[in-house]
Amino acid sequence: MPAKPSALASQRFAPPLFVSQWLNTPAPLTLEQLRGRVVVLHAFQMLCPGCVSHGLPQAMEIQRAFDPRTLAVVGLHSVFEHHDVMTFAALRAFAHEYRLSFPIAVDESSDDHPLPRTMQAYAMQGTPTLVLIDALGRIREQHFGTVADLLLGAEIGQLLAERGQTGTAGLSPHLPEEKSA
Amino acid sequence: MPAKPSALASQRFAPPLFVSQWLNTPAPLTLEQLRGRVVVLHAFQMLCPGCVSHGLPQAMEIQRAFDPRTLAVVGLHSVFEHHDVMTFAALRAFAHEYRLSFPIAVDESSDDHPLPRTMQAYAMQGTPTLVLIDALGRIREQHFGTVADLLLGAEIGQLLAERGQTGTAGLSPHLPEEKSA
Amino acid sequence: MPAKPSALASQRFAPPLFVSQWLNTPAPLTLEQLRGRVVVLHAFQMLCPGCVSHGLPQAMEIQRAFDPRTLAVVGLHSVFEHHDVMTFAALRAFAHEYRLSFPIAVDESSDDHPLPRTMQAYAMQGTPTLVLIDALGRIREQHFGTVADLLLGAEIGQLLAERGQTGTAGLSPHLPEEKSA
Amino acid sequence: MPAKPSALASQRFAPPLFVSQWLNTPAPLTLEQLRGRVVVLHAFQMLCPGCVSHGLPQAMEIQRAFDPRTLAVVGLHSVFEHHDVMTFAALRAFAHEYRLSFPIAVDESSDDHPLPRTMQAYAMQGTPTLVLIDALGRIREQHFGTVADLLLGAEIGQLLAERGQTGTAGLSPHLPEEKSA
Repeated sequence: MPAKPSALASQRFAPPLFVSQWLNTPAPLTLEQLRGRVVVLHAFQMLCPGCVSHGLPQAMEIQRAFDPRTLAVVGLHSVFEHHDVMTFAALRAFAHEYRLSFPIAVDESSDDHPLPRTMQAYAMQGTPTLVLIDALGRIREQHFGTVADLLLGAEIGQLLAERGQTGTAGLSPHLPEEKSA
Repeated sequence: MPAKPSALASQRFAPPLFVSQWLNTPAPLTLEQLRGRVVVLHAFQMLCPGCVSHGLPQAMEIQRAFDPRTLAVVGLHSVFEHHDVMTFAALRAFAHEYRLSFPIAVDESSDDHPLPRTMQAYAMQGTPTLVLIDALGRIREQHFGTVADLLLGAEIGQLLAERGQTGTAGLSPHLPEEKSA
Repeated sequence: MPAKPSALASQRFAPPLFVSQWLNTPAPLTLEQLRGRVVVLHAFQMLCPGCVSHGLPQAMEIQRAFDPRTLAVVGLHSVFEHHDVMTFAALRAFAHEYRLSFPIAVDESSDDHPLPRTMQAYAMQGTPTLVLIDALGRIREQHFGTVADLLLGAEIGQLLAERGQTGTAGLSPHLPEEKSA
Repeated sequence: MPAKPSALASQRFAPPLFVSQWLNTPAPLTLEQLRGRVVVLHAFQMLCPGCVSHGLPQAMEIQRAFDPRTLAVVGLHSVFEHHDVMTFAALRAFAHEYRLSFPIAVDESSDDHPLPRTMQAYAMQGTPTLVLIDALGRIREQHFGTVADLLLGAEIGQLLAERGQTGTAGLSPHLPEEKSA
């Protein structure tokens, strides 16, 4: 059991994503569609140094290391500063240069709050934030800042093992495949 | 499921350790005593550069990251070259300088073979080699050379999750505790 | 002597910088004003991964390691792709987030060429490019891509030693100081 | 000029090396023989973690980066603990495994002092220690612990530049060449 068993006992269902635009996917995604897979939701900003040096490379390594039929990596561009320059066009150029190929949702901005709507719904404290959602759609871990590969791997391994034992694996073929840009 | 599900299906029981001497433990250990815990067996040589730069720091991080009641790290000093200088006294000085605090077995040398006996029994190809043994005593992974923390973490997480579900956790209190040197 | 003595014998004077805008300096700079100091000119693009992971951290370390009265670090934002999103406003946000405090020139775009004008004048092949200019204003090294700290340090040390011996050090007090943003 | 100009003004001549045995050289070396070259003297212990992870790799990179006719790297095995296991035979095995090919002097032990004699003569505080000796045989820098490649490179570059200007370069052909093991 990883170091924080109590956090793993959390039962909160992951709120829906509030998305204004998608990148790297032929059609919009929903978490419901991804039910049956472990979901790694990685919230970042393209001008956030910790995201660029740590969070995004880790998300890319997760994408490479695991079978997309059992684990889905989803990016979330949660802009809460420098809105004028972190546009969709800028994100698209950034994703191209950094070879990001997982689906990326643009977190919908809020009319009455400085933080975008998904970021609020998940009570994220900043970027990077990595959320682990199990095959049943529950939030199991939420890491703000850096998290070591070893511990994160153990958390993922546990969720994958549970998934195998709950018989949800059979749902995979019905799910939309991730597209590489 | 980690990237190599077929390897995880392996059912071979871990051979016993052939040990001439122990370090960092008040009494000799056996794998049978550790049954009920996931065991990370790390075979190394103190003069092996890849062990010093990669394998041993990874073993130490595993020891720090997981609860010793559910996962045991065991070192194995499998000397197959420079026997005259990789003595027990040298290993003890090495372990002191590198702050290794997990139990370390000295792999028993062979009368009729250049490789020590445990190394032979596990068919290890060299050092570093990391063996993952599940709570039931079966070899589940054996990595020669470097293995990424993320993948290794996922393998460990899976074994810990299985362990939780097979009810073996209850055995832990009866097991000898690891000693910090 | 560093590994490429022949390159060090180059005598070409550094072409002037073609600049549309400056960041992190109260007034525009010219290389002539910096005569008497060793100049490290670092050409980058804010969306260039190698610049962000290697080139800019190295430029920042150079700025920290050496006395600004004897060595000046100057950034050059040489945009040759994604012009619509690598704007001055975007660069300013980027420089703020990455804590870049050395003066940064925006390389002037060309009417008749895809590469900006300073990039052309120096025959740069891409970004990152690091140009070492001696106290007499001559290009002494031009590195495209990554260059190891040890070798780069040796090149800088040689130029600083030469500078000390040519009596140009006395000019330093008359030069404009660098401003930290 | 590097960050510590005052240290560079030191004029102390490097004491002779007290050596019980040599490795990686066909004949004993003296600093006098190396006069005319910049000398990087790297004091280490084979069981010192900081030496293995930082000091020795840096010494090897210096050896690779610079012309052996102008700069000589010399190792110094200054054992002040675990004498019984850091023997010459152990050092030889260590140097073989880590591919150390520069000459290594075994610092002569002292009858009446726990520190070996060269270590005492240089007033070294521990290992790793890196001593920079100029072409005229003077100690110019002495770093205990880690030193960044960029700063160390600048110090080396300065000494190499001075060497070029004092006409000592011409001595190089007469000096014994380093041997690769």
